[in-house]
Amino acid sequence: MSDKISPLAPKKYPRMPLIAGVRIATAEAGIKYRGRTDLLAMVFDEGTEVAGVFTRSKCPSAPVDFCRANLPSGKARILVVNSGNANAFTGKKGRETTAATGKAAASAVGCSVSEVYQASTGVIGEPLDPAKFTGLLADLVERAEENRWLDAAKAIMTTDTYPKVATVTVKLGDVEVAINGIAKGAGMIAPDMATMLSFVATDAPIAAPVLQQLLSKGVGGTFNAVTVDSDTSTSDTLLLFATGAASRRGAKRIDDPRDPRLAAFKRGLNKILKNLALQVVRDGEGARKQIEVTVTGARSAKSAKRIALSIANSPLVKTAVAGEDANWGRVVMAVGKAGEPADRDLLSIWFGDNRLAHQGERDSEYSEEATSAYMKRDEIRIRVDIGLGRGKATVWTCDLTKEYVAINGDYRS
Amino acid sequence: MSDKISPLAPKKYPRMPLIAGVRIATAEAGIKYRGRTDLLAMVFDEGTEVAGVFTRSKCPSAPVDFCRANLPSGKARILVVNSGNANAFTGKKGRETTAATGKAAASAVGCSVSEVYQASTGVIGEPLDPAKFTGLLADLVERAEENRWLDAAKAIMTTDTYPKVATVTVKLGDVEVAINGIAKGAGMIAPDMATMLSFVATDAPIAAPVLQQLLSKGVGGTFNAVTVDSDTSTSDTLLLFATGAASRRGAKRIDDPRDPRLAAFKRGLNKILKNLALQVVRDGEGARKQIEVTVTGARSAKSAKRIALSIANSPLVKTAVAGEDANWGRVVMAVGKAGEPADRDLLSIWFGDNRLAHQGERDSEYSEEATSAYMKRDEIRIRVDIGLGRGKATVWTCDLTKEYVAINGDYRS
Repeated sequence: MSDKISPLAPKKYPRMPLIAGVRIATAEAGIKYRGRTDLLAMVFDEGTEVAGVFTRSKCPSAPVDFCRANLPSGKARILVVNSGNANAFTGKKGRETTAATGKAAASAVGCSVSEVYQASTGVIGEPLDPAKFTGLLADLVERAEENRWLDAAKAIMTTDTYPKVATVTVKLGDVEVAINGIAKGAGMIAPDMATMLSFVATDAPIAAPVLQQLLSKGVGGTFNAVTVDSDTSTSDTLLLFATGAASRRGAKRIDDPRDPRLAAFKRGLNKILKNLALQVVRDGEGARKQIEVTVTGARSAKSAKRIALSIANSPLVKTAVAGEDANWGRVVMAVGKAGEPADRDLLSIWFGDNRLAHQGERDSEYSEEATSAYMKRDEIRIRVDIGLGRGKATVWTCDLTKEYVAINGDYRS
Repeated sequence: MSDKISPLAPKKYPRMPLIAGVRIATAEAGIKYRGRTDLLAMVFDEGTEVAGVFTRSKCPSAPVDFCRANLPSGKARILVVNSGNANAFTGKKGRETTAATGKAAASAVGCSVSEVYQASTGVIGEPLDPAKFTGLLADLVERAEENRWLDAAKAIMTTDTYPKVATVTVKLGDVEVAINGIAKGAGMIAPDMATMLSFVATDAPIAAPVLQQLLSKGVGGTFNAVTVDSDTSTSDTLLLFATGAASRRGAKRIDDPRDPRLAAFKRGLNKILKNLALQVVRDGEGARKQIEVTVTGARSAKSAKRIALSIANSPLVKTAVAGEDANWGRVVMAVGKAGEPADRDLLSIWFGDNRLAHQGERDSEYSEEATSAYMKRDEIRIRVDIGLGRGKATVWTCDLTKEYVAINGDYRS
């Protein structure tokens, strides 16, 4: 465990505007941590619609199962999140806990259990006793306030070294609407597994099926394009809530995914998702550098993304960047192991603007000095041109340092 | 770079018998290293047959291309291996080097270029000048001797901390035949990428197509069941040579893969392959513990192997073992991310004989004390029962330590 704040933490935080129809409260439930908040309730006005995407793990946590079951109704009144215990791999007890939480939250708000959403993050395999926090929910709902977004981000942290928030304002037709988001990252605490959670809310009046389309599409180039260590949590959850409150200011409800007013909203949403996803990467365990990997010239966009992820997940590429070495040989290796169409003799590789390899050979023109200087930066861009087609993709990761091993392996020694 | 010998190195080396029909010589060509051998020639009597398997990389090295092209003839008279330069990602120059090496080796032995095999390991992306060693080949062939197996293993090392040899004697019908093998492991040297190379020879008279079947099948549970860091070299090469010299002692040639005399040979060969593959794992960069992962109860053997590799390649599982923590939550995570059929509520997980989880929950019976004691061992066995079918697989890996990051990232700092 590290108390140090990531060197890649944001230098300052944005002022988070209110989202009409969303109220927030946090509490110290003492689930695992002491002296910090570990319980978040986000209360939504009636009529709030919701969309979600979840971990692809075949062994998802109980809260993921709970949310997935509720999602088809598309309505949300409350979100409950705890940190300190993931309620994952907890069998029948896990389902009992999500049922009890659902019931208590519904009763606190006065809604149906199908309008409750929940997420848990922290230790895996330990039963989560709902009695530790269900009694607090009525009070939380009572004292929830609109202006608590940074507090919300703090309450869901586990090994994150900084809270993650983002905001954007866009026009929906003639009416300004806001989108706020929070996230927590992929960290690890003894002997726990942490998780990527993110919750985004807007006052725009958008129907749930439209929200779901925007979200499912939006994660492709954002949350599904970042990787810290190739390990996938059982609990990853991203929810998008739309209160519709902006309709009181004249915004007309959108229930057609082809509505032209969506264009600006979509750009704004994707900006939030990318911002939060990058904050997660920049707070990866032990991270000292952000790495952007772009693959061009692949047979297809899908193929490009597979190759990019093969590079971004390669321990050898990530340790080389940690060592400030522009080791393009390891990039070739990672292209080769991706299993996608590639021709060794057509590859070109850049670190930043320095082309190190061209048409399958070391580029005799490249400047060792300029490249060495470039590798000292905080943000490293690797580009590979496959030379076969027009498929393109970009993904982000962080370097692999001794600190990663210390955080994830040293806690018992 | 580490000068320390792996704590998992063998305590003693076997006495390697002669393989009639194989002669070996090594030299100091000074390709990259100083004061050590870096060139190996293995000379085979006429009539020697050969089989091979190679990296699945889509960007293989020039020597891999060379060997693949020669393999259909099934005949071998000489193997040339150099360490210090992998001749990978070297474009046209790489092909010129393999052509020059092939020609010089063929001329030294007096054979066709199609009977030459070669492998290179070391730095990637640097042209390999064949003039550094082709002039030495005639002399090497001249002074090659039968009793030089350990020297052969030493000449092909890169970041290996110990040479890897194995031997076994089996009956082919009534006649004793021997199988010897050497290997080098997956290490990394500034700014190089090393590789898995292995060469096995026997005096058994077995036809090339039969050898190929045995070898292709044999790697499944051995060389293709080990992983150090999930990264695949451009140069992995495994060759099996059969001189047939045992026919002078009455062994009849085998050219039918169903020949019942093959059973013992096959067991012996697989034993050699497994022994060498495990030596590679035990010399993985920074390794302090060997990890055996067995998955039972999967839908199929293929599914079991995918799940087992997902566990064995998980940085979080590997750092937990380095930290001597029986972190079964991370094992659940790795099962979930494998993408194979699994039901969270049917999983059982053991570390050694300690069952930590059963039917999707923590096993309330397990002894924390016994498990902690178990985790201090050099060799850790993880078993997962999926509870769905009869598919089974075992793979091997090593733990992930700070030393791995140091070896692969610190060399420039």
